Amino acid sequence: MSFAKMQGLGNDFMVVDTISQPVFFNESQIKKLSDRHFGIGFDQLLLVEPPQQPNTDFHYRIFNADGKEVEQCGNGARCLARFVKIMGLTWKYKLRISTLKGVISARMHKDGNVTVDMGVPNFEPDRIPLRYANRELNYAVDVDGIKYSVGAVSMGNPHCVLEVDDIEQAPVERVGPAIGQHHLFPQQVNVGFMQILSDREISLRVFERGVGETMACGSGACAAVAIGQLQQRLGSKVKVHLPGGDLTIDWDGEGQPLLMTGPAEFVFEGQIEI
Amino acid sequence: MSFAKMQGLGNDFMVVDTISQPVFFNESQIKKLSDRHFGIGFDQLLLVEPPQQPNTDFHYRIFNADGKEVEQCGNGARCLARFVKIMGLTWKYKLRISTLKGVISARMHKDGNVTVDMGVPNFEPDRIPLRYANRELNYAVDVDGIKYSVGAVSMGNPHCVLEVDDIEQAPVERVGPAIGQHHLFPQQVNVGFMQILSDREISLRVFERGVGETMACGSGACAAVAIGQLQQRLGSKVKVHLPGGDLTIDWDGEGQPLLMTGPAEFVFEGQIEI
Repeated sequence: MSFAKMQGLGNDFMVVDTISQPVFFNESQIKKLSDRHFGIGFDQLLLVEPPQQPNTDFHYRIFNADGKEVEQCGNGARCLARFVKIMGLTWKYKLRISTLKGVISARMHKDGNVTVDMGVPNFEPDRIPLRYANRELNYAVDVDGIKYSVGAVSMGNPHCVLEVDDIEQAPVERVGPAIGQHHLFPQQVNVGFMQILSDREISLRVFERGVGETMACGSGACAAVAIGQLQQRLGSKVKVHLPGGDLTIDWDGEGQPLLMTGPAEFVFEGQIEI
Repeated sequence: MSFAKMQGLGNDFMVVDTISQPVFFNESQIKKLSDRHFGIGFDQLLLVEPPQQPNTDFHYRIFNADGKEVEQCGNGARCLARFVKIMGLTWKYKLRISTLKGVISARMHKDGNVTVDMGVPNFEPDRIPLRYANRELNYAVDVDGIKYSVGAVSMGNPHCVLEVDDIEQAPVERVGPAIGQHHLFPQQVNVGFMQILSDREISLRVFERGVGETMACGSGACAAVAIGQLQQRLGSKVKVHLPGGDLTIDWDGEGQPLLMTGPAEFVFEGQIEI
């Protein structure tokens, strides 16, 4: 079986074209392939499948390293779009790709960057979900007697964002898990630490639910920009510096989808017997 | 450039045939390739080169993930031998391969296992090096007021081995670094924790100098068997259970080389632009 290894801001993927070759994976095969010493090693496996509905170009499936299928991954969507272009599976520069969660659009730029539609953010507390009666710009979250003021939004998954003065000194490892598992968030929450550099530029570190701090959380970048813009601290186009590299987020305001632009690198091509 | 990814007991390698393709790597390229998210990911890079002296089949170079060239790696030698066979670079089943440290011999078995010559162990304290006037079967090493009794040997690199009753409960993380950096060993030492199951079978965990506990230290397995045999606890053929899998060590006694037999797995083939 042929595959490609790709990465976006250090989030890495095994990408397989199941159109040109018939392949089927079970959970234990994916686990074995994801092992970084005994297998290929990746955060997620991405499968390109033939379109399943009109007005779409491809179907796209995502599996975590533990073999479980998941709904969405922003860094993965950029890599998938670049993959179909590099492998000659499409002539188009604008694609519509169906996923478990709905159709996403992707646009390829000449510099190799890719823009993907990350969906419309939802700020209603019961949709995040967040145990607060009314929607607010900032919520008070009490951790060990300290009150943190956080914005909150659903990007399909729950996010909260707190502002810090110095991104290097942000207490990600200490405060991240405490807020992440706070009883106000019944399904836990991803916690972003944002330093605002100007109305067009932020630095961000994200403590991801069930994972820990990651190199580049695409939905976290969208959450931070949406919250910062609603709080009138950020403009409609914001460069986000993450530990793994930079993303640019465009947002025309409430009710509109967030557009995420960033790199997608083809690392190598491989062949493996499974 | 074409490469293979191989592993032996979880110790993993990028293997490159520089006979069929001209390739040159600098330190920063190796570092980048060794990265498990941004590159291919490996513990060591192995290069197969044309023979440099009569009566040898190949020359073999080894680079750590940090880009520095090193002398020897037992798990790597097994993978290299299997690689030249699988890639059709040789018809032989017995090979002589030159390295920075001298010529090693390798023999391929039909089951895919490979036997490599790990050299003659040296028990002289000044060669290990160990600050003790006379050679002894056991040396007393004092750590925080506790006296540990250890055997010591040089396998090209310094090793000491202590016996434990229960390999699962062995204090590898606590005692490993303390003995490893003990002033009796001026160049530090790899520390093996050995549970003797019978005169033909041991379990072993190794705390490697500058690395920590590893899945499978080939020279550590040789050290444990040589020391156990001199202490008349082990026979001439010993199966060694390591966290990454099993090795078999054969030794005909002092002055003779240790022979290590174990698996070498071809994981996948790849192509990358560097």
